Amino acid sequence: MRMYDLIMKKRNGGKLTKEEIGYMVQGFTAGEIPDYQMSAMMMAVYFMGMDEEETLHLTMAMAHSGDMLDLSGIQGIKVDKHSTGGVGDKTSLALAPMVAACGIKVAKMSGRGLGHTGGTIDKLESFPGFTTEIPEDRFMENVNRIGIAIMGQTADLAPADKKLYALRDVTATVDNMSLIASSIMSKKLASGADAIILDVKSGSGAFMKTEEKARALAEEMVKLGKNAGRRTAAVISDMDQPLGYAVGNALEVKEAIDTLNGNGPADFLELCLTLGSHMVVAGGMAKNTAEAEGKLRQVIADGSALGKLADFVEAQGGDREMVYHPERLPRAAFTESIPSPREGYVSRIVCDEVGVCSLMLGGGRETKDSAIDLSVGLVLQKKVGDFVRKGEALAVIHGNDREKMQAAARRFTESYAFSDCPAERQPFIKAVIE
Amino acid sequence: MRMYDLIMKKRNGGKLTKEEIGYMVQGFTAGEIPDYQMSAMMMAVYFMGMDEEETLHLTMAMAHSGDMLDLSGIQGIKVDKHSTGGVGDKTSLALAPMVAACGIKVAKMSGRGLGHTGGTIDKLESFPGFTTEIPEDRFMENVNRIGIAIMGQTADLAPADKKLYALRDVTATVDNMSLIASSIMSKKLASGADAIILDVKSGSGAFMKTEEKARALAEEMVKLGKNAGRRTAAVISDMDQPLGYAVGNALEVKEAIDTLNGNGPADFLELCLTLGSHMVVAGGMAKNTAEAEGKLRQVIADGSALGKLADFVEAQGGDREMVYHPERLPRAAFTESIPSPREGYVSRIVCDEVGVCSLMLGGGRETKDSAIDLSVGLVLQKKVGDFVRKGEALAVIHGNDREKMQAAARRFTESYAFSDCPAERQPFIKAVIE
Repeated sequence: MRMYDLIMKKRNGGKLTKEEIGYMVQGFTAGEIPDYQMSAMMMAVYFMGMDEEETLHLTMAMAHSGDMLDLSGIQGIKVDKHSTGGVGDKTSLALAPMVAACGIKVAKMSGRGLGHTGGTIDKLESFPGFTTEIPEDRFMENVNRIGIAIMGQTADLAPADKKLYALRDVTATVDNMSLIASSIMSKKLASGADAIILDVKSGSGAFMKTEEKARALAEEMVKLGKNAGRRTAAVISDMDQPLGYAVGNALEVKEAIDTLNGNGPADFLELCLTLGSHMVVAGGMAKNTAEAEGKLRQVIADGSALGKLADFVEAQGGDREMVYHPERLPRAAFTESIPSPREGYVSRIVCDEVGVCSLMLGGGRETKDSAIDLSVGLVLQKKVGDFVRKGEALAVIHGNDREKMQAAARRFTESYAFSDCPAERQPFIKAVIE
Repeated sequence: MRMYDLIMKKRNGGKLTKEEIGYMVQGFTAGEIPDYQMSAMMMAVYFMGMDEEETLHLTMAMAHSGDMLDLSGIQGIKVDKHSTGGVGDKTSLALAPMVAACGIKVAKMSGRGLGHTGGTIDKLESFPGFTTEIPEDRFMENVNRIGIAIMGQTADLAPADKKLYALRDVTATVDNMSLIASSIMSKKLASGADAIILDVKSGSGAFMKTEEKARALAEEMVKLGKNAGRRTAAVISDMDQPLGYAVGNALEVKEAIDTLNGNGPADFLELCLTLGSHMVVAGGMAKNTAEAEGKLRQVIADGSALGKLADFVEAQGGDREMVYHPERLPRAAFTESIPSPREGYVSRIVCDEVGVCSLMLGGGRETKDSAIDLSVGLVLQKKVGDFVRKGEALAVIHGNDREKMQAAARRFTESYAFSDCPAERQPFIKAVIE
């Protein structure tokens, strides 16, 4: 078999076989197939596409290119959740304790985020002492005992995907539905969960800018998960503005705690309940989503979800008392209001830009080795559809450097648009694909 | 400027500017733009194409990526000829002396061939002592005095094309009309001639397998040449069977000499007259092609074309007497007839396969360092449309190794197809594009 012939076949609209895709993925991972051939292949795939079978073969080949996690030491059905990412996305922080309180096992192996805001691990490090560097046996034991554990990625999961994504990233071959779906799902399949619930965002702050594209990706991933023998569902939600109000690491932790205390933002709570109810059903702890949602509301009301978060933080080296006293989380030196430049209804927020503002304050990671300032960020006061008077606060900015705060505030103001009449509200949850 | 953005632009159907193409070609040649980005770009070009302006910018950027030959030391209009290559293509050997005898200056810088049969330099080395390793001043002097000189490629002509072609060759991005045309024309433009006559072959023995594709390539190249300010024309001729009868280095030299003696094969003579008349007109030595053709027939009839070949061979170290005694050229130890397996009309010859037979005998170069056996090859006795009796010779095979001859003869027989009735003859010259 020669890579040249496979490129030619795909370029001419042919269908690659399981053996051909296996040869390509193994050869590329081993460094036997050079980057320049793989990038030509990726561009041919961009134009000619891959069908359902080819996408499945690619996903399976990448999933099996490294370690396949064995979670059989954990009792019960393991449910994994994956988000395509967005601004103010603190979902795991509230959702994991909620479903764990319903009896679902959440075993996460996670890398660090690169981008506008920190990843889940960065946010959890707002609890001083919290660590993901725990040995595998303690990880397993914690999941069995508490229902949640999170561990830094030690295993070599889907190295083919890692190498291929890096190449696609510099050759303008990222945005193809089959390639995006196989990249996400190969890692999820290697991570060993029995069921996978996907949190697919749509809008200006998401990778998928339109609902149509988000739906296509969700359908592709759900098909892949099912074809690989895992129970899979996807929830498509709005990311045309930040999720909830808080953007920034410790600020988001506080908002997650507020939610577990029954005081969460409506959109964020709705997302946690929708994703959570599918996780609870997939994990066999409820017959249908209505029953599951009832249970999730109950664990918030009786405080057991908040208790799970405290147990989890404590089990990984943090202070459980901070969950009950979020005012002790890292706090920035200064806070300032960002006044509205005019009166009217907020008609649009350029969501990505809000993420950039948090990054400007020091809340995100520009390169792999950047240090994150956990205390900084923004708390929105007005979201799309809200009425605001001139000079009234659009957001409160939290920072440790007045100059950076001024620059971020200017940029933030630019990201808002206004109109004289209220726009029609769009549904927050767009669809559930299962 | 970033290569990533240029790939994205082309992928999305955008048009690259002169500056962008210049950046890309210079960066790639200097090794600053990696192969994996260039191969992705080439695949995007394969799918999205390049328009006339983009193709011109690419051609000019590649032409200027190395040395630009200065032929101003040669008096008069310099006319260059380029063939897209085929089996039995000894055109330069007869054509150059013919047009030189009409007063045209032929100054060629040439590399060695890689493939089925040798290149023009290999064929000329059938004259013992002939060398292309001559200093540039003697090269110029010879052109001015005799009208023909050929020199091994010492200058660094269009290095960008060389590097890009090598990459396209292993990434299935060769067959795009703009890329093929710019590759050929960048070298021709760097070679410094005032006028360029293109010999574009069409058929099973050519790079362009159909007349439609040959015509598209010819039109693209003629446009490029004119846009670059050079007088340019292209002749499209049939390569569905070998050109003339002889295939093999010394055998082809003999056929070229026969042609200059007025005893050439009809198709080969027609090609030389058609290409030659356009060269003579482009060089200002005739008002129209009819007048030019008359002159070309005259220089054959009066022996002056043959005399030019003798002068040229002598000026570059060979024995001029061999031109008048071609029986002294290198000869193989054995000759054998290849008998026809049946009676009928030859309906088809798989032209490429005849080239492979010559290669099997030792007449071509498989790798850059292979030695060529100049004496071996085949002389066809029957071509398409000819009637043949069972056992009558299809060709005479010339070789130095009985086993190789047997294998080549078997393969040769397989390349012929027959029918019971004669097929309609197709015109040999398909079109002239100017």
